[in-house]
Amino acid sequence: MAQKPSIAKGTRDFSPSEVNKRNYIFDIVKKHFKTYGFQPIETPSFENSETLMGKYGDEGDRLIFKILNSGDYLRKVDDKTYESKDATAMTAKISEKALRYDLTVPFARYVVMHQNEIDFPFKRYQIQPVWRADRPQKGRFREFFQCDADVVGSDSLLQEVEFVQLYDAVFTELGLQGVNIKLNNRKILAGIAEVIGERDKLIDFTVALDKLDKIGIDGITKEMREKGISEKAIEAAAPLFSLSGSNLEQLAVLKDLLKDSEEGSKGVSELTFIIETIASLGLQTAKLTIDVTLARGLNYYTGAIFEVGAPEGVQMGSIGGGGRYDDLTGIFGMKNVSGVGISFGLDRIYLVLEELNLFPEAIDQSLEVLCVNFGEKEGLAALKLVSRLRKMGVKSDLYPSAAKMQKQMKYANNRNVPYVVLIGEEELENNTFVVKNMLIGDQKTYSLNSPEEFINEL
Amino acid sequence: MAQKPSIAKGTRDFSPSEVNKRNYIFDIVKKHFKTYGFQPIETPSFENSETLMGKYGDEGDRLIFKILNSGDYLRKVDDKTYESKDATAMTAKISEKALRYDLTVPFARYVVMHQNEIDFPFKRYQIQPVWRADRPQKGRFREFFQCDADVVGSDSLLQEVEFVQLYDAVFTELGLQGVNIKLNNRKILAGIAEVIGERDKLIDFTVALDKLDKIGIDGITKEMREKGISEKAIEAAAPLFSLSGSNLEQLAVLKDLLKDSEEGSKGVSELTFIIETIASLGLQTAKLTIDVTLARGLNYYTGAIFEVGAPEGVQMGSIGGGGRYDDLTGIFGMKNVSGVGISFGLDRIYLVLEELNLFPEAIDQSLEVLCVNFGEKEGLAALKLVSRLRKMGVKSDLYPSAAKMQKQMKYANNRNVPYVVLIGEEELENNTFVVKNMLIGDQKTYSLNSPEEFINEL
Repeated sequence: MAQKPSIAKGTRDFSPSEVNKRNYIFDIVKKHFKTYGFQPIETPSFENSETLMGKYGDEGDRLIFKILNSGDYLRKVDDKTYESKDATAMTAKISEKALRYDLTVPFARYVVMHQNEIDFPFKRYQIQPVWRADRPQKGRFREFFQCDADVVGSDSLLQEVEFVQLYDAVFTELGLQGVNIKLNNRKILAGIAEVIGERDKLIDFTVALDKLDKIGIDGITKEMREKGISEKAIEAAAPLFSLSGSNLEQLAVLKDLLKDSEEGSKGVSELTFIIETIASLGLQTAKLTIDVTLARGLNYYTGAIFEVGAPEGVQMGSIGGGGRYDDLTGIFGMKNVSGVGISFGLDRIYLVLEELNLFPEAIDQSLEVLCVNFGEKEGLAALKLVSRLRKMGVKSDLYPSAAKMQKQMKYANNRNVPYVVLIGEEELENNTFVVKNMLIGDQKTYSLNSPEEFINEL
Repeated sequence: MAQKPSIAKGTRDFSPSEVNKRNYIFDIVKKHFKTYGFQPIETPSFENSETLMGKYGDEGDRLIFKILNSGDYLRKVDDKTYESKDATAMTAKISEKALRYDLTVPFARYVVMHQNEIDFPFKRYQIQPVWRADRPQKGRFREFFQCDADVVGSDSLLQEVEFVQLYDAVFTELGLQGVNIKLNNRKILAGIAEVIGERDKLIDFTVALDKLDKIGIDGITKEMREKGISEKAIEAAAPLFSLSGSNLEQLAVLKDLLKDSEEGSKGVSELTFIIETIASLGLQTAKLTIDVTLARGLNYYTGAIFEVGAPEGVQMGSIGGGGRYDDLTGIFGMKNVSGVGISFGLDRIYLVLEELNLFPEAIDQSLEVLCVNFGEKEGLAALKLVSRLRKMGVKSDLYPSAAKMQKQMKYANNRNVPYVVLIGEEELENNTFVVKNMLIGDQKTYSLNSPEEFINEL
């Protein structure tokens, strides 16, 4: 008996309409990546396990999909490992490859392996799927695309400025006005921990601070106390809890607060440069705001930290983020390569555009002209017309068989075709074709000798 | 100590230049898929194992990459299986998912699972990677892209006609003139086996016939004898061994040879319809030729069989192929869905275009304008210019730091930049910028107030 087919848990099929919408986003992102001088690379879907393992923490190691070795893979397992029946020990013996978990580690491997061909600073973008063995739930998938742009080999803050402009350019063209580009700097967080005398508790402090929006000042002070952060420190940090006003006003507060910390002051001056340069260049539709509670990927970032929030009124987590890191390639033995990068959250951007009805209407118009098929002779005349239309780049088709008119018109309707062409016996005799405009319902007759008259009207 | 990174066996990194060249091919193929009314779908990289296993024969099962279950996967293995230490039995217990082996089986699954949303005939294209655990060798990879277009739900021969036109359109636009679209029909092969009285030896017969080009008439008659095909049969089939002349002349020979076979005659009439319709429509640059030795995927195809050969003088196997199949979705319980499809062999097309120098020159020009960075103040003026250029869609960049002129010019050279912009102290005072044309070496000065003068000249 034939099996009932199913799709793997946590994965998705994409219908034509979904692929078109996803490509609409990718194409706009790519276009701007290119005008900003970024170049595409692609890396393989799977890597040798040692390239990936140990790079994402224990949880990451667990979530990496491992590929079983081919052939009689059990033969290579020694008796001791086999008898232990321990999955972790066994995995190392029966699996040598694993599916990519993100695009960052493969990029680092790429840079190290190709360092002699690359012209630094290297501006690369990469849009490829990644895989994670997470428990699937709403909005979380086991296969999803990441969309990253990074510059490595330059420590210039102009790169940070450029990424703010790039976010603005992409979201403006997507019609997503008013996104909030939040900006912070790891050095500011470190400086704060330093001046309040809690350098060792940097992570506890920022994790608590990060919850300011959710649990308020009382909530975070309580959490800080629980983590052993002193009353004196909490008091010293208090100006942060009610930081408000313009970016320049906030910078003034931070500058004062961090005046005794060298690192913190450096963070303030970096932040100031980015804010001032962007103010001088202007943004199209995005806002740029300082957010000292922003601490994403703290262990990883060393300078600027970015996060993009959807426009006000849209319930959605961040739709993009990134930051500067100082030692991407160190894990593979190439030192002192500073980098900064951002990513776009495709799936969330898709949901936001859908919610705000921002996809172009024509996106589901995969066919502009459908010729009705009235039989072999008429069909051949229609096929000649279709061939000419296609050569002019018009998406067109002939219904493949002389099915009932109703069935062919239903197909045209379902496929959202705006123009239906009729070449019946009479038209064939007169060497004409009739075009039915499906939107307004009228009909017009053209000569088969000069179809360009119709094409020009399209 | 840092590890030396490596790439998994049989996989490839693609550099910016390679990605651009691959996308050049994909974009042209996609453009024509769309004008022919095909719609894109995408399916997940991995499928449940039962969807893939048993669909490609024993060899295929062996070459499918299996993904290890997550967590403590050994716990679910019963003692008996574990003690047997048999890899095949074990695989079934510790792996539930596998990487896609081709795009055809996932497409069949898609059609069956989405049959109620699909408007038939369904014309879909799909361009995604597939994975095979083959031994890597020159030109054979463990990860490679397939590029397929299929129509399901129509048995009209117009689809075959359309695929011939589609091949012609794509290869013409790629500049690959004179490709040879070879055409055969499974029914003709079956008819031949019938009229020579060797119906049971259809596969042996066609496998031998397929070698005609390589081993000649003597070689194939010897092989046929060895396979137990009778002298009488070989004699009866002899007209095939020296089939020549125009398509119409060959059709006449076949028609006569197969006149007593119903199936064979049907094959001849199908072939005749395709050949005559194409003759009436005309092809741009491709040739369409009958090739009765063409037998690819014999177990699978039921009607037309296509294969595209590179233009004469290029040493390369087929660069495309396909055919009609009558029961794609039967394996998943959906009967009577006739389909026909073709594919493009991306990697080989890439090699042919490279060999014939057919990629556009501008493909490696990832940056049109580079501004030299002379310092903070000059840099800001340059950044403003770059921002304007980017808004106009010009791929442009500012060198991120005020490095030595020589270093910046070397970078411009390496990245193939045609225009280098200079804004030094003097230019900044005069509110101008200098454009150096890197190809002809001359310089021209423009006003920073009206950069559109330069843009219009681009």
